Amino acid sequence: MSSTATATHLELPAAGVMQANVFHSPNRFGLESKPIPRPGPGDAVIKVRLTTICGTDIHIVRGEYPVAPGRTIGHEAVGTIHELGAGVTGYSVGQRVLVGAITPCGQCMDCLGGHAAQCGGPLGGWRIGNSMDGAQAEYMLVPFAQANLAPVPDSLSDTDVLLLADIASTGFSAAESGEVKLGDTVAVFGQGPIGLCATLGAKLMGAARILAVDKNPFRLETARKMGATDTFLADGDPADEILRRTHGVDVAIEALGIQATFENALRVVKPGGVVSSVGVYAHNLSVDLGAFGAGIADKRIVTTLCPGGKERMTRLMRLVETGRIDLKPLLTHRFHLDEIAEAYRLFSEQRDNVLKVAIAVP
Amino acid sequence: MSSTATATHLELPAAGVMQANVFHSPNRFGLESKPIPRPGPGDAVIKVRLTTICGTDIHIVRGEYPVAPGRTIGHEAVGTIHELGAGVTGYSVGQRVLVGAITPCGQCMDCLGGHAAQCGGPLGGWRIGNSMDGAQAEYMLVPFAQANLAPVPDSLSDTDVLLLADIASTGFSAAESGEVKLGDTVAVFGQGPIGLCATLGAKLMGAARILAVDKNPFRLETARKMGATDTFLADGDPADEILRRTHGVDVAIEALGIQATFENALRVVKPGGVVSSVGVYAHNLSVDLGAFGAGIADKRIVTTLCPGGKERMTRLMRLVETGRIDLKPLLTHRFHLDEIAEAYRLFSEQRDNVLKVAIAVP
Amino acid sequence: MSSTATATHLELPAAGVMQANVFHSPNRFGLESKPIPRPGPGDAVIKVRLTTICGTDIHIVRGEYPVAPGRTIGHEAVGTIHELGAGVTGYSVGQRVLVGAITPCGQCMDCLGGHAAQCGGPLGGWRIGNSMDGAQAEYMLVPFAQANLAPVPDSLSDTDVLLLADIASTGFSAAESGEVKLGDTVAVFGQGPIGLCATLGAKLMGAARILAVDKNPFRLETARKMGATDTFLADGDPADEILRRTHGVDVAIEALGIQATFENALRVVKPGGVVSSVGVYAHNLSVDLGAFGAGIADKRIVTTLCPGGKERMTRLMRLVETGRIDLKPLLTHRFHLDEIAEAYRLFSEQRDNVLKVAIAVP
Amino acid sequence: MSSTATATHLELPAAGVMQANVFHSPNRFGLESKPIPRPGPGDAVIKVRLTTICGTDIHIVRGEYPVAPGRTIGHEAVGTIHELGAGVTGYSVGQRVLVGAITPCGQCMDCLGGHAAQCGGPLGGWRIGNSMDGAQAEYMLVPFAQANLAPVPDSLSDTDVLLLADIASTGFSAAESGEVKLGDTVAVFGQGPIGLCATLGAKLMGAARILAVDKNPFRLETARKMGATDTFLADGDPADEILRRTHGVDVAIEALGIQATFENALRVVKPGGVVSSVGVYAHNLSVDLGAFGAGIADKRIVTTLCPGGKERMTRLMRLVETGRIDLKPLLTHRFHLDEIAEAYRLFSEQRDNVLKVAIAVP
Repeated sequence: MSSTATATHLELPAAGVMQANVFHSPNRFGLESKPIPRPGPGDAVIKVRLTTICGTDIHIVRGEYPVAPGRTIGHEAVGTIHELGAGVTGYSVGQRVLVGAITPCGQCMDCLGGHAAQCGGPLGGWRIGNSMDGAQAEYMLVPFAQANLAPVPDSLSDTDVLLLADIASTGFSAAESGEVKLGDTVAVFGQGPIGLCATLGAKLMGAARILAVDKNPFRLETARKMGATDTFLADGDPADEILRRTHGVDVAIEALGIQATFENALRVVKPGGVVSSVGVYAHNLSVDLGAFGAGIADKRIVTTLCPGGKERMTRLMRLVETGRIDLKPLLTHRFHLDEIAEAYRLFSEQRDNVLKVAIAVP
Repeated sequence: MSSTATATHLELPAAGVMQANVFHSPNRFGLESKPIPRPGPGDAVIKVRLTTICGTDIHIVRGEYPVAPGRTIGHEAVGTIHELGAGVTGYSVGQRVLVGAITPCGQCMDCLGGHAAQCGGPLGGWRIGNSMDGAQAEYMLVPFAQANLAPVPDSLSDTDVLLLADIASTGFSAAESGEVKLGDTVAVFGQGPIGLCATLGAKLMGAARILAVDKNPFRLETARKMGATDTFLADGDPADEILRRTHGVDVAIEALGIQATFENALRVVKPGGVVSSVGVYAHNLSVDLGAFGAGIADKRIVTTLCPGGKERMTRLMRLVETGRIDLKPLLTHRFHLDEIAEAYRLFSEQRDNVLKVAIAVP
Repeated sequence: MSSTATATHLELPAAGVMQANVFHSPNRFGLESKPIPRPGPGDAVIKVRLTTICGTDIHIVRGEYPVAPGRTIGHEAVGTIHELGAGVTGYSVGQRVLVGAITPCGQCMDCLGGHAAQCGGPLGGWRIGNSMDGAQAEYMLVPFAQANLAPVPDSLSDTDVLLLADIASTGFSAAESGEVKLGDTVAVFGQGPIGLCATLGAKLMGAARILAVDKNPFRLETARKMGATDTFLADGDPADEILRRTHGVDVAIEALGIQATFENALRVVKPGGVVSSVGVYAHNLSVDLGAFGAGIADKRIVTTLCPGGKERMTRLMRLVETGRIDLKPLLTHRFHLDEIAEAYRLFSEQRDNVLKVAIAVP
Repeated sequence: MSSTATATHLELPAAGVMQANVFHSPNRFGLESKPIPRPGPGDAVIKVRLTTICGTDIHIVRGEYPVAPGRTIGHEAVGTIHELGAGVTGYSVGQRVLVGAITPCGQCMDCLGGHAAQCGGPLGGWRIGNSMDGAQAEYMLVPFAQANLAPVPDSLSDTDVLLLADIASTGFSAAESGEVKLGDTVAVFGQGPIGLCATLGAKLMGAARILAVDKNPFRLETARKMGATDTFLADGDPADEILRRTHGVDVAIEALGIQATFENALRVVKPGGVVSSVGVYAHNLSVDLGAFGAGIADKRIVTTLCPGGKERMTRLMRLVETGRIDLKPLLTHRFHLDEIAEAYRLFSEQRDNVLKVAIAVP
């Protein structure tokens, strides 16, 4: 950035407009026209090719997580570089990239201190589709583009990599923060998209036995494909059943964000073990640390927001390239951007065994 | 242990008896006669020279933590080796040793898996004065003696090292589990003996700023001697005050075990930071993980039981030997074993600026 | 061990003798009669069912690594418990167990300080077939049996688990000490049994790309089965080729112990990366740290001796149980104990695509 | 950086010139006029107030480390912000800052992968006074200013903080990379400025015993002030003496960069221990990994280049603020910029008990 960098861009018609999925108030959101963004210094504008809907987006449209009215939502995208702001080097217009959901600047106290996801303050690293316009649109602006665009190898398709921007990276981080060791026994509560990726993450890190819990048989079946060795329907007492089979797990991953799963996770984990939470909590949770015994049982509770940055996305793409992982089974349904309302409906109602929806942008 | 080891011991009068502080029921405990224990294979019997009372002992005599009636309590002692069981090698009768409060076997799944304090199951490593007779007596039996007796260098007195068996080791572990880094800002809630040692531990690990909270001005004054740079009376809103002065701390240590301090600790810690708890909870605690933001703020909660084993005690004694630490100011009062009732009264009522009481055994 | 433990054993004929493979002097070794060992306190005697030959044994019989004349060699075994010494609890005669190659006591300064493999001083943890009689025999004595016998689940055969005592555990530890991360690129120099297990270990820990180097095409073919994505014949300049394909690797594993591979490992690793060595060096190696650049390139060199203890063996057996790993392809040849001379010949000459030989004991 | 940021600067006379210490060829260097630099996007120009000479600068002027002829050298500075390039936010002209010696961009693969010092390739993070003009001048340009300027609190003087840009940070990192634990025994070979800071770093991290080796009695005396508990003249056999006193150290720090100290460091470290090197090597070093024993003794060798970024500098400044460290005794001599030739002479000849020279810039 110390060299003289000039902005490179395609010439745009004066009135460049695009379609974007805009939130206005609880349950009032949808496609509308917006100007195509222009990059400031350090930014990039991406022409979106493929995006998706996150559980957090459902919280937003329900009014459970606050974003400003008028905000374009969505934070996961594969696209091509449309325009580069001043100072962004080593990229070229037209290049296909995976865009980070979390966009750390790399240069603030939080980032330099190793907490990139919290860049600039609590949740600060999550900007796209939160504190600035997001990815469910024809074009999107990416801040700190130098750090947050990961070139996609030609050998990989958009669907191969889309989920690495957030959902898979977050799921894997549950296993990483849990410090899964070779041969460990891991319980994963919740087999939604994040939970399924946590299951896969536990397998990738060398867990021997992975016990997956969900209330949906199709999700449990998918969990087996992702590496689960034991699956449990959540309607009994899964913690009891896990304790009966394992005498305690090394790592318990909480990927749902509700009180019951948190309590179960704390209950099944062995002394010295870790409860790793990547659930997003729509409501306050109370964690009972117990009296005496439980409180001093050397247990740890860790929470993780999706780590960001192009280095991680690039590393994870390599797992797809070498065939170690295949995330396409998670993209159960495909829509076009103009069908996004329908996609939201399907995804939020969890109908038709939906896991994640791919939304193609023309 | 594979070599032939013969038990070495002093000849004892047939009816060897001793005085011991025995718990019977809530608020009913005191000195009485008991047979001097004899070591089984792997055990040692120690003639106690100096012992002390722990906050946990107060919980026991109040009936808040369950031990079997008839149990000799106390788990901290310096003494001399009186008799060695079969298979204990490299020690000699008469040798002065610090006895571990936690006595890991070193050979079970928990120990070999790195969770020595939980040896043999939850709290299993804490046996002395808990699941077997303890240290407030003229003689005590030490299990797994090979792993749990640390020879005391001649240059160090009994009072120099007594607190390293538990209270100081536990306090330091709060800072260690919190992963304090050079230049960090650390808040320590509660400046009782453990909290003061946590303050010292944070200093030892290179914290720059240490904010100590307590409701007792004398304890805050002592905290300054232990390394605190800022001290706060707990009766205002210490969390508010800490946030005002620091904009969030890297590590918050909870050394009291009550709901309010836990909440404060969670509140003052920065995203990416650690709440490290070594408080012993007399009552269930509820930890509010908050909605959205708080829950995914990359915070960690770690609980630690005093790590055991002679290696750690030996390492910590070296800090006293080289003058890096001086724990004697914590031993504010001195009693003889036959005054133990008075010592309990003073310590439990926290009168006369008591921190820890040294109890000399004749 | 603090409880009264009585030795449990089968009644043996007064003159119990057995066959054992005994080293006398360079190239003079073979089967001969020895008394069946009897356990002291803490020991166990195992009736061996399956053993194998390690590369280190070849060094021994060639006189390149010193053991006392008359020593029974070999340090890997599956067997049944024949007799238990005083103080060993929780096991029963007849039980099938995997015996640790490294036998940490769990109770010394080294063990308690986290360096179990170095129990009691440099290489101290490696006793069996080194400083005491070993596993290539009908019966063997195991010191510190409490810590070093891992019960084998009924679902697993002797051949399923034999290699977890040393070779696989050591190979995996190369990846663990190298701190392989999800998506990493790893080079493994040497695809002998340890190198192949290092390749598998890198895969187990989530490496995306694994570049395996050896001079033997069959071993490279096996490396692919273990997880290698790229294989190289060592006779060209494999370091050049690796750098050409990868622009530097995150972790380079050295599993051969010769100068050339060490230099190559240092050369291909990226700044900030790790050279993880599990090679056993028959000759001194010189590591060129280079001038300026190389020396301050934040590189690390780590060496690891097989971590010991039953907890690790149990954890690794779980990987076989759940089908995550299959080590049987490494056991290319099978002999009976009375054919051990032939087994040594085949293994040391690396004929017939031998990887490891299984030696059944009647 | 995504917001519109306009460059703020003082109006300069058209022909702004300054004095700078420029290298031309071995032993030919000195003050000359150069244009005052102007910042590009992301840069800052600093008016230097205080700078110093590093051992690496001595290597440069001797021709032992290559820099381009015409290069202004020096990489340590405190100064005020003179001009800010586009996109640098949160700073103001006139503000006093400590300038990073290593200037990571925070946004490349190396930085985001946790190897900021190697930003952009081997040694890439070290730009100032290496691959671009440096700090021994009236003005200097700082690349990636957002990440590399740490505001100096009013309570601290320039001399309080100058050494935190490189020498102290590097010395501390030797202890950090060595993973010094509470109560550890640490040997530090070489008590030049980096070695003295490594000694202080070991103390800050809680080492109990610190054995410092040098050939200069004054430096050993200073080592005692920094925390050394034992000091040794290097002309005997310091490794022998250390082994005699300690039976092996946990961490051996190599802060000189010559063959003998490296060999000694490897020799005195216990199995499982770490050799942490921050020496800058003018010549190739050969590290003898030994045969068998030594090679598999679980030893680690780590090399560290000064970690960069404003977060670390800010954290370390806090240690000065709270009185935990005082680096002023290391600044033994003071010069003005126009006396820089004399300063180089004194420093390179190590006359008059010089440790570091402060060079005031008018």
